[in-house]
Amino acid sequence: MAAAPALAHRIARSGVLPLCRRLPAWGRAIRQPPSLPLAPCRAFSNNKIQVEMNESSGVATMKFKSPPVNSLSLDFLTEFCISLEKLENDRACRGIIITSAIPKIFSSGLDITEMCGKSTEHYAEFWRAVQEIWLRLYSSNMVTLAVINGSSPAGGCLIALSCDYRIMAENPKYTIGLNEAQLGIVAPFWFKDTFVNVVGQRVAERSLQLGSLYPAPEALKFGIVDELVPEEKLQEKAAAVMAQWLALPDHARQITKSMMRKTVLDRLVAHREEDIKNFISFVSKESIQKSLRMYMEMLKKKKS
Amino acid sequence: MAAAPALAHRIARSGVLPLCRRLPAWGRAIRQPPSLPLAPCRAFSNNKIQVEMNESSGVATMKFKSPPVNSLSLDFLTEFCISLEKLENDRACRGIIITSAIPKIFSSGLDITEMCGKSTEHYAEFWRAVQEIWLRLYSSNMVTLAVINGSSPAGGCLIALSCDYRIMAENPKYTIGLNEAQLGIVAPFWFKDTFVNVVGQRVAERSLQLGSLYPAPEALKFGIVDELVPEEKLQEKAAAVMAQWLALPDHARQITKSMMRKTVLDRLVAHREEDIKNFISFVSKESIQKSLRMYMEMLKKKKS
Amino acid sequence: MAAAPALAHRIARSGVLPLCRRLPAWGRAIRQPPSLPLAPCRAFSNNKIQVEMNESSGVATMKFKSPPVNSLSLDFLTEFCISLEKLENDRACRGIIITSAIPKIFSSGLDITEMCGKSTEHYAEFWRAVQEIWLRLYSSNMVTLAVINGSSPAGGCLIALSCDYRIMAENPKYTIGLNEAQLGIVAPFWFKDTFVNVVGQRVAERSLQLGSLYPAPEALKFGIVDELVPEEKLQEKAAAVMAQWLALPDHARQITKSMMRKTVLDRLVAHREEDIKNFISFVSKESIQKSLRMYMEMLKKKKS
Repeated sequence: MAAAPALAHRIARSGVLPLCRRLPAWGRAIRQPPSLPLAPCRAFSNNKIQVEMNESSGVATMKFKSPPVNSLSLDFLTEFCISLEKLENDRACRGIIITSAIPKIFSSGLDITEMCGKSTEHYAEFWRAVQEIWLRLYSSNMVTLAVINGSSPAGGCLIALSCDYRIMAENPKYTIGLNEAQLGIVAPFWFKDTFVNVVGQRVAERSLQLGSLYPAPEALKFGIVDELVPEEKLQEKAAAVMAQWLALPDHARQITKSMMRKTVLDRLVAHREEDIKNFISFVSKESIQKSLRMYMEMLKKKKS
Repeated sequence: MAAAPALAHRIARSGVLPLCRRLPAWGRAIRQPPSLPLAPCRAFSNNKIQVEMNESSGVATMKFKSPPVNSLSLDFLTEFCISLEKLENDRACRGIIITSAIPKIFSSGLDITEMCGKSTEHYAEFWRAVQEIWLRLYSSNMVTLAVINGSSPAGGCLIALSCDYRIMAENPKYTIGLNEAQLGIVAPFWFKDTFVNVVGQRVAERSLQLGSLYPAPEALKFGIVDELVPEEKLQEKAAAVMAQWLALPDHARQITKSMMRKTVLDRLVAHREEDIKNFISFVSKESIQKSLRMYMEMLKKKKS
Repeated sequence: MAAAPALAHRIARSGVLPLCRRLPAWGRAIRQPPSLPLAPCRAFSNNKIQVEMNESSGVATMKFKSPPVNSLSLDFLTEFCISLEKLENDRACRGIIITSAIPKIFSSGLDITEMCGKSTEHYAEFWRAVQEIWLRLYSSNMVTLAVINGSSPAGGCLIALSCDYRIMAENPKYTIGLNEAQLGIVAPFWFKDTFVNVVGQRVAERSLQLGSLYPAPEALKFGIVDELVPEEKLQEKAAAVMAQWLALPDHARQITKSMMRKTVLDRLVAHREEDIKNFISFVSKESIQKSLRMYMEMLKKKKS
């Protein structure tokens, strides 16, 4: 595991991601020299994310399995990033289904322990990893399908919003939304841009100010998710939706996607370092540290 | 009353409004030196707007009471501006409810007598006051809730659109919309931007071209208002909605709001003088003067 | 017919179109010197488009009648362009209804034979004509009403989207959409911009990536069309809708429309030559030529 953050760091450092055809990254050149046939990946599992590749369909399934709530720690994000990179570079993989192996939760969002009582360097590394996941996912050449089989607040919601299509379990106990404001935190501009692209300005404005978490039926009504499906039919439905998307030639679809998302992607690429500085300065404030500590205390009490 | 326009003028002249934490304006520094505790405002009423402050909830209610139809004259706008400024500077005030004390009408919009047969200087002063109200309301740090208890055409609709949330009386006789085109007038770009932010491009394009006034149920359908409530339950509902918004910490909500609205606010700030010149040149045209005179004649006949 | 492409070319070369008041083009100056009264046009029919002008209402009806499927060939586009130009310059004409004289089809979109096995110069001329139609239609001072009485894929859909309002026959067998991706083709950015203006970012993103063709009821649901009407009532409804739009003074409506559409129009005007180069480079690719040839073969087999 020790090498992983370093690799992620290297990937992250590379800066602008060309959206349509990525230059082979250094790490990849080592693993997969262009002159050799690509080794088909079957299944790989690390600590926190399980990946299964169906070679006949060209579809990979990524299952978050980081108990208790799939929170997005630096380790989780690093694994996520490496898994995405692997699949993105695997020509046999045309689509990914992102879902959770933990009952009732898709992902609880950013891991607050990464933002509490750590060094400036740590905050910078963590935030760069958050940015990196969004940049990769939102610009992925693969068809990305979120199968939201549990609650999905904050950063968990961002992951879903960054996919091409969102199916959610038809269970009003599961909620989704960018609820940062409820913790006294401001969702960064690229969370906001991604949200506006999905639900439009009015709904985004109200939801972000209120930090709204929507039960599945309301999430459908406001367009946060595209479809609700009974939980036991999620897999079947996901396969059908993916097949529909993969029925199209990749190239035109990829360029179209890139054209649709370019403005918003470019904005973060242009302001990435500034955004990291803003995060560090915000999270380092004593008032924010205090409110995060209180929130963690509350979570601990809830558990016990 | 004599001093009021001058003060508004001073405020208006100050130019760019920093959105998150305003520097104390000269006028305020005189009234409320920072070293003294802020005097809690209770209720103040001028000629045209009645303000009640509930100190326990931190919510002020502004009631338009300028018969017959709450039209936005220069005097009205000046009072509105001063009231907003006072509340904005009052730390005890976290939210405002904007409504009408006149039955069946929220506000009829800009006062046409201010645009008819007056001097260039007058047109400039009037238009600057219209801009100023929008800049202050759309960028307000307070939670702003429009309780639309009557019809609300043109400028009246703009005031509602500039709030954070809109509740309208469930009465199909009440209409709302930016109907400027029906008078042969073009809604300025920042009316348009505000409208697009609420209803999206397609609905805004059609509604502005047709100068549509929507009965309450249609206004809800197109997203111009967020909720319909029986007229007798408006107050109760307003209090509940406001409480929901005030349940969140102010700071994150304010920064989020500023982030969402910045682009549109900045556009007017950057083009403010040009927009005033455009208004003067438009309103000074003989053809426009003639059509406004005809419209006023029609209104007079209607009354008698 | 020989002179027509040359004229269209001349029009097309003129570059930026001032949106509100166009300078008289050379061709028009010859036909209609400003000192003479404008000759009222009644009906003119060329090969592919039939135009009827109702002088009492000020409404022209353009009927596409280019069998079998009203495909947008260079000749068709040239005629379309000249007809639009004529009506735009005719002060008696305030609105146009665009519909089809061919049963079951509004327009099948760009004529693929124009993009297959032709010279670079031909591709350039063809693409410039496509751009020109869009620029003229999207910026038209007239009220433009699409009466979609049949299927309307790709370029046919673009024409409908460029109008002010869309009425479609209530027939689920008729479909509409920008389905370019299904042919492995990328809809250009200004198709995308026009689509986003009508349906918003989320629906546009998904629809363009999937190349979705929507049956009429779904097209209504997603906002691609504004109304469904039983086919036999289309004409009657069109007249009523047009009357509603023409009840307003032209000038304010025209400026409002121009203000709403300017950003998107300016983008193509600024990148017009680049867009032509992109089209040529794309369409000249052997892979694209091959897939277009295959598609044409398929169409031929379908017919026989």
